[in-house]
Amino acid sequence: MAEDGGSGSGYNPPMPGELEFIQWLRSQQTPSSFVPVPAGDDLAVLRWDAGDLLLVGADQVLDGVHFDAAVHSPRQIGRKVMNRNLSDCAAMACLPAAAVATVALPKRAGVDYARELYLGLRDAADPFDCAIVGGDTGSWDGKLAFSVTILGRSAGVTPVRRSGAKPGDGIYVTGPLGGSIRGRHMTFTPRVELARRLAQAGGVTAMIDISDGLSRDLRHICRESSVGAVLDAAAVPLHDDARALAAEDAMEPGHQYHRALVHALSDGEDYELLFTGHPPALPPGVVRVGSITGEPGMWLDDNGRRPLEARGWEHEL
Amino acid sequence: MAEDGGSGSGYNPPMPGELEFIQWLRSQQTPSSFVPVPAGDDLAVLRWDAGDLLLVGADQVLDGVHFDAAVHSPRQIGRKVMNRNLSDCAAMACLPAAAVATVALPKRAGVDYARELYLGLRDAADPFDCAIVGGDTGSWDGKLAFSVTILGRSAGVTPVRRSGAKPGDGIYVTGPLGGSIRGRHMTFTPRVELARRLAQAGGVTAMIDISDGLSRDLRHICRESSVGAVLDAAAVPLHDDARALAAEDAMEPGHQYHRALVHALSDGEDYELLFTGHPPALPPGVVRVGSITGEPGMWLDDNGRRPLEARGWEHEL
Repeated sequence: MAEDGGSGSGYNPPMPGELEFIQWLRSQQTPSSFVPVPAGDDLAVLRWDAGDLLLVGADQVLDGVHFDAAVHSPRQIGRKVMNRNLSDCAAMACLPAAAVATVALPKRAGVDYARELYLGLRDAADPFDCAIVGGDTGSWDGKLAFSVTILGRSAGVTPVRRSGAKPGDGIYVTGPLGGSIRGRHMTFTPRVELARRLAQAGGVTAMIDISDGLSRDLRHICRESSVGAVLDAAAVPLHDDARALAAEDAMEPGHQYHRALVHALSDGEDYELLFTGHPPALPPGVVRVGSITGEPGMWLDDNGRRPLEARGWEHEL
Repeated sequence: MAEDGGSGSGYNPPMPGELEFIQWLRSQQTPSSFVPVPAGDDLAVLRWDAGDLLLVGADQVLDGVHFDAAVHSPRQIGRKVMNRNLSDCAAMACLPAAAVATVALPKRAGVDYARELYLGLRDAADPFDCAIVGGDTGSWDGKLAFSVTILGRSAGVTPVRRSGAKPGDGIYVTGPLGGSIRGRHMTFTPRVELARRLAQAGGVTAMIDISDGLSRDLRHICRESSVGAVLDAAAVPLHDDARALAAEDAMEPGHQYHRALVHALSDGEDYELLFTGHPPALPPGVVRVGSITGEPGMWLDDNGRRPLEARGWEHEL
């Protein structure tokens, strides 16, 4: 999604579409003191505040994995990839500052489709004053792949890592979990403000956003912090979507409550925050779901303790 | 290519490969004062020097467009995508500082393949002390798409833009052009040191790297600078690859010299620098190929002036 547009190793004549799209993209950008040089050069130029740490990471969405191009609109897809990146900012309690995007567009998707992808990015980024400063658009004989890199700034809050959990800490989540595949995985709101409020209030020792699933993201924290965890099954907030899925899982073994719990523990793409510590107060919607232990390993307290398997999404390479 | 690894909207059980790959990736990273928090969290944390402008952009390579996965090794592909981004740093005369990468990997490509892609990135980035600090790996039922975002720092040199060319400026290129498809497009060396040396010496008014083709990248400068240009056909340095292709173009009209010139003007992916101004001295390999004019438009002086068409690569959207 850049002025530069893309280049290739072919001998193709100029094609209509790309330059028009790039001109339109540039018309969307407004210069600012933070971005003195927006798209129009090989790189955008940002003035980084001397007091700010720079946080950076990237997340992509792929057709058939994170969305279905036959079902979801380009605007929804653009929103999702940006929101996933904004959610990574929430996980570290930093403020989104700027983003760049690359898109591999199926041939003949058309300029309007590319425009809608960009507007989806903007829908998600604009509420956070996160500028989209550059990128690269290419078309190919392949499916839609859309990647965003996010730059965040610490802005007065020490970044919260995964590695700070201590035995005795509580384990908290910021909302009900499970069943996001019913639609929420495309429409969630990244918890940036809530993360900043929690981190500023103090007492947060480790944090992550729940993308892989509660059990698996909890394992990330346990491994990074060299601790263990006990989850209280009855305390895990079940989303209505988890219950609805459980009702549909007629072929699966187990009671409906248990099936909904499995969804809450394993589904992923909730994009709620999972954090540990001793927060001085709990904002609305935040609930304690367990405790950090000194002994490594994870358990589920569900009328008796049993090992908690870290189930969730892992890509097969 | 990140610790975080990737997440999805599925209900897939954990698959072998991803976690192993992520552990290996992390073993490759060494902490530094510049990167106090490397991969292992949702975002990497960088300490940005207060005196540095932050330059940022992204470039991707796609199977069948920028490389052929059936022909090129993953190591070559990794090198190319990183070198394309390093070449963008050269275009702005900044120093590469850090990069993040996202890769959409065909299913069952395997961990070794992913490792080679990463090592290709490192092959290109290490000579510039450019740290690979994070990213995202996903596998899908699609072809290989590999995207890199580069962060550069001004490090005492004002970024050179495309918009500074003035009537009367000379037009220069840093090496012979054309025919990169014969192999150079996978193996070029980004002109970072040369760009810094030129910019530090002064007299460079506009610069770009030649990715789309000399005529098309010159047009980028002309448009951004609101100027025109005259190229001296006899001065354009022809790469041996351009001559070799010209010799093969038996079916094309025109003399062999003319055909080689067309390759030099249009092929692209040379990744030499194209710049304008009045450099006090020309480093070896740098040649003057024309002049900037006040009148808009582009001409080729080839025993008489004729309009120069901006031919080269443009993606069809």
